[in-house]
Amino acid sequence: MGTGMAMLFAENGLDVSLYDVKPEHIDALQPVLRDGLAPELHGKVAGYKDVDGFMHSLGGASADKLLVLSIPHGPAADAVLEQMRGFLSSGDVVLDGGNEYYENAGRRQDALRPHGIAYVSMGVSGGYQAARRGPSISPSGDRAAVERVLPLLERVAARDPKTGRPCVANLGPGPCGHYVKMVHNGIEQGMLGIVNETWEMLYKCLHTDLDTISGVYKKWEEDGELKRNFLFGIGADICRRHKENGQPGHIVNEVQDKVVQDADGSEGTGFWTVMEAAKRHVSAPTISSAHFFRIASADRAERMQVVEALGQSVGAARKQHVDEAFKKEFIEDLRLAAYCACLASFAQGMNLIARASEDEGWGVNLAECVQIWREGCIIRSEYIADLLQPAYEKEGGVVMNTLTLQAVADEIKRTIPQLQKVVKYGLEWNAHIPTLSASLEYFKYCGGKHLPSQFMEAELDYFGAHSYDLKSEGEGEVKKGKHHYEWKPA
Amino acid sequence: MGTGMAMLFAENGLDVSLYDVKPEHIDALQPVLRDGLAPELHGKVAGYKDVDGFMHSLGGASADKLLVLSIPHGPAADAVLEQMRGFLSSGDVVLDGGNEYYENAGRRQDALRPHGIAYVSMGVSGGYQAARRGPSISPSGDRAAVERVLPLLERVAARDPKTGRPCVANLGPGPCGHYVKMVHNGIEQGMLGIVNETWEMLYKCLHTDLDTISGVYKKWEEDGELKRNFLFGIGADICRRHKENGQPGHIVNEVQDKVVQDADGSEGTGFWTVMEAAKRHVSAPTISSAHFFRIASADRAERMQVVEALGQSVGAARKQHVDEAFKKEFIEDLRLAAYCACLASFAQGMNLIARASEDEGWGVNLAECVQIWREGCIIRSEYIADLLQPAYEKEGGVVMNTLTLQAVADEIKRTIPQLQKVVKYGLEWNAHIPTLSASLEYFKYCGGKHLPSQFMEAELDYFGAHSYDLKSEGEGEVKKGKHHYEWKPA
Repeated sequence: MGTGMAMLFAENGLDVSLYDVKPEHIDALQPVLRDGLAPELHGKVAGYKDVDGFMHSLGGASADKLLVLSIPHGPAADAVLEQMRGFLSSGDVVLDGGNEYYENAGRRQDALRPHGIAYVSMGVSGGYQAARRGPSISPSGDRAAVERVLPLLERVAARDPKTGRPCVANLGPGPCGHYVKMVHNGIEQGMLGIVNETWEMLYKCLHTDLDTISGVYKKWEEDGELKRNFLFGIGADICRRHKENGQPGHIVNEVQDKVVQDADGSEGTGFWTVMEAAKRHVSAPTISSAHFFRIASADRAERMQVVEALGQSVGAARKQHVDEAFKKEFIEDLRLAAYCACLASFAQGMNLIARASEDEGWGVNLAECVQIWREGCIIRSEYIADLLQPAYEKEGGVVMNTLTLQAVADEIKRTIPQLQKVVKYGLEWNAHIPTLSASLEYFKYCGGKHLPSQFMEAELDYFGAHSYDLKSEGEGEVKKGKHHYEWKPA
Repeated sequence: MGTGMAMLFAENGLDVSLYDVKPEHIDALQPVLRDGLAPELHGKVAGYKDVDGFMHSLGGASADKLLVLSIPHGPAADAVLEQMRGFLSSGDVVLDGGNEYYENAGRRQDALRPHGIAYVSMGVSGGYQAARRGPSISPSGDRAAVERVLPLLERVAARDPKTGRPCVANLGPGPCGHYVKMVHNGIEQGMLGIVNETWEMLYKCLHTDLDTISGVYKKWEEDGELKRNFLFGIGADICRRHKENGQPGHIVNEVQDKVVQDADGSEGTGFWTVMEAAKRHVSAPTISSAHFFRIASADRAERMQVVEALGQSVGAARKQHVDEAFKKEFIEDLRLAAYCACLASFAQGMNLIARASEDEGWGVNLAECVQIWREGCIIRSEYIADLLQPAYEKEGGVVMNTLTLQAVADEIKRTIPQLQKVVKYGLEWNAHIPTLSASLEYFKYCGGKHLPSQFMEAELDYFGAHSYDLKSEGEGEVKKGKHHYEWKPA
């Protein structure tokens, strides 16, 4: 991503110096720059293999420097920052564009601030190709520093094709930029689960051929509730990639069925979101169900031991024999079910941002988050953005529970019958539907006037004397109730 | 719980001094001691309102003291320990029996060790009544200290009625005792969700009257797969508690449908388990689904706004009209479905302990955990303990994934048809089944030979160049694959 961003900066008038801890990466850069940049820009990006030369190219100690980090989170970023530290002085700005854990970002802000060095916590989304073309950017930190770099970020950020507005905004103080990016990836994780589950039903259960699925996804992405949904859009591309050199078959059928990026530690945002939801008491079952599915997929060797012990039928999606009329109707149901479940993923993520923002005093505007995600990022979904952004704007950007918004509730109510139908078929066909079914249950309990939790609360009071509120006392507060009953006198 | 434990210690031959930061608690203690202890023991427990008198009653600085903490986790326990610190000296032992976060426990161990003061991280389970009768105890810490207090703990701990063996063992070094207790509560959380969901189906959907449900749960708890399952056992008690003074109705129907103990910060173990599962990459959807359900139940006022916006039908379990033959068969299916889902909750918890134990070098023996949980604790479940304990013993107590055990897999395979059937009806009846459905999906993906995650991995490779393994390369390792495809050339 660093190379892509460097080229993007060069195209926007900057002289860019590039440094990588691995000198071979600087060597590998040259052909990329030659092929990727217009000839007149070839001198605008210079690669360096040593920190000294790199830092001097930025003007040395006396000049105000802008340092952009695009490095794996945690110790790797700490090490590079440490290497650079001696060359940084008051007036310099560090833009950290890695997927950093927000607490690390906050710690760096606090460590650098007394020296007059600003650290901007900057979420960058869209993947390596968007980094080149224009990513979605969520910066935060000390106001003066963010405002100083904002004009530059507005030049390189993606733009909403409808309004031309850039997909970047000063989100607030502290590390809320990385927090919002983390939640973006959590919502992404939920949506990846949803897309994946639709794929299995289409491909494995209804044995729709991949080229046809590509057409289905393309149509979904062209208009309606999944309009410009990035993940369905790239799903269409993936399903039509045939093997090269005339070999029969599709590339996707060569890919092993395991997602390792959480388990191998190379990525943190997905599981951080689950941790944060648990820590801040925000219900996030769509995001966590999708996470636990992909985590379980990662260790295939161990999984095969479970398959061996359980037998193959427990975990196999079953092929169905259905007529074309059924299939046509089901595909339309599936589209709306996927949309409904995507709303669950969004609601959970937005509720987490709202809670964290309140806890930390960040003042994040949810409408601005949606604006940032309108283009250049993985959860881009125009119809959903069109639904959420005005609804948040009407509330001044602060909404503690997105499900309380009438516009959102209306959409859920309209499409939940399709989600129910698809989950029912998924169950019947033994398809893997952890995310879709969790999303359905989420809506059912969030919208439940009378939950069975009266019984759970009684059990907790029985053994733990946790005490409870009475129904006759109305809604009550979110705190320990006043009543304990000795269900079984000792 | 502190008072109950004090009385239990007194009955086992100890002179006990009690101190509470609130003097009124010491006043309130006197009638409890008088009523609860045999007359000859009345002098064995003395209450103190000041730290000085309390510490001197233990023999002052020269005597080896045993200090038992039963205090809310975190800052409250830190404050009391700080208050006591000046009176503690080399040779003293602190037994922390609160639900402490394991990292806090480890921190205290490290802080006190250089002064010769041992801090034993001690999980205590069973609730306030078991604390009085004999709890399930999971201590850990420096070996010499744990071995020193073990004979005492063996006297006061619950005992397995079948073998007479005490439900306590030296679990290992560091704070693994609190970790195991935390996971106990995570498994409990999953099981509470399961029990709760069976209750709604019986009561709300099949309109079984509460006294009949009490009989059903009692029968379940008497024999078979749910034998001596604590949570179903107390469920039977709860369902037969009528209002007092001849008023019509049951106590449980007075209880408001919200579980606040996570959201109000009074309890941590449930959400810590979800955080730990996410952090250590252990799939735990049963535990987290139950958690997110109860979290969402907590803020009833906000929930009513969602009900208002969504309409009442989305979240309402529907009353069914079924004949007695159907009902009878369904109740038997429900029993086995609940058992199958409980195995999911146990497997997830045990996998988390196994992973943490390996990460931290604790060497926890899973068979010993099951032995500790055989009596006096909330997840007591004799049939499940009889299934798991020998299976773990055969593997020397270390099993990274409980689902790979043939004995466990056989039970899941035998009862998953009932779980599938119950989830299907739950869906049809719009019952709340977040935990049951998540458990089913868990088994399906853990036992899936071919998961749809090949498509998810392709999507991640498309936008993030995450790269993948090829199917033709076999199971491969849990690390970044070797192949990237330019699905859409830039």
